[in-house]
Amino acid sequence: MVTLGVVVGSTRPGRMGAQVARWVQGRAEVRLGLRVELLDLAEVALPFLDEEQHPSSRAYQHQHTREWSRRVEALDAVVLVTPEYNSSFPAPLKNALDFLYEEWRRMPVGLVGYGMTSAGSRAVAALMPVVTALGMVPAGAVQLPLRQRVDTAGVLRPIAAEDAALDGLLGDLLELTTLLRPAQAVAA
Amino acid sequence: MVTLGVVVGSTRPGRMGAQVARWVQGRAEVRLGLRVELLDLAEVALPFLDEEQHPSSRAYQHQHTREWSRRVEALDAVVLVTPEYNSSFPAPLKNALDFLYEEWRRMPVGLVGYGMTSAGSRAVAALMPVVTALGMVPAGAVQLPLRQRVDTAGVLRPIAAEDAALDGLLGDLLELTTLLRPAQAVAA
Repeated sequence: MVTLGVVVGSTRPGRMGAQVARWVQGRAEVRLGLRVELLDLAEVALPFLDEEQHPSSRAYQHQHTREWSRRVEALDAVVLVTPEYNSSFPAPLKNALDFLYEEWRRMPVGLVGYGMTSAGSRAVAALMPVVTALGMVPAGAVQLPLRQRVDTAGVLRPIAAEDAALDGLLGDLLELTTLLRPAQAVAA
Repeated sequence: MVTLGVVVGSTRPGRMGAQVARWVQGRAEVRLGLRVELLDLAEVALPFLDEEQHPSSRAYQHQHTREWSRRVEALDAVVLVTPEYNSSFPAPLKNALDFLYEEWRRMPVGLVGYGMTSAGSRAVAALMPVVTALGMVPAGAVQLPLRQRVDTAGVLRPIAAEDAALDGLLGDLLELTTLLRPAQAVAA
């Protein structure tokens, strides 16, 4: 069975990322029947990269690195949920990516951006060379314009077109997983 | 008198950033007679962005934010020294930038990248939209190819062309400061 990781890339108080991630999780579980592992970086609580060796060596000195490695390695595909800070991705997400290397390699990845003015599209664009450098296989991206999608109570309300776009992205992720990791996909 | 900040953007053990920053500091002090304030993010030791309000509000809840704000506000221009991790900038540098807003506005900025395969040029390119979003005024960039410039003892040895490129960048920074902050420049 395919296990999809959903990474909540923001950790600041008041973030919308957890709501966006739950939206992704809900569509993945209900529409595609995937097993979802939520990876909330606020809970993972990595420090700033503190390994001396390049992660490709896997010579990890710290327990938090080994634990993060174990959790990522258990995934077949991943969705990175990213806010946009100053036209790019936030530090905790880049840090969590930089901590590992081989664990990300050949992993299908979808990007879900959100933001006030550009719907997270610049953060998504900034992430593309990063995930490519890590050898991940991008399936595409979905962007949420927060100004139009958060109601007065602070609740995220994607529209049908965004649900459809996310379903499409998740479908592409699953197809890439079938191609790249056929053993897991067959068991799904 | 103009005060130039030099930010060491990497914090991991074994980093080359401190050596690169000392190179920048030395040229700025000796060649241009600038007062240099070294801002080593390993010593600044900010946590991941933990302010709830957008920094443009300046409604800082934490002492570390107020202290970082005070230090950045004392600068007239800044050089960001960045390694390249996975084709982009490292998390601590983005985090330190995201913590503030008005403090960076209209501040002349130079970028000094370094790296093994692309000399930090992709990290520099990734930073450009970020510093622009913060309203900083980019003076240009210098890149150091580490593979060719670190000797067997691990000592950074820039060549004369790189010294000249850095001097040019520092000169442009000073000129921009003269234009943008005439009061400080006149007193220099």
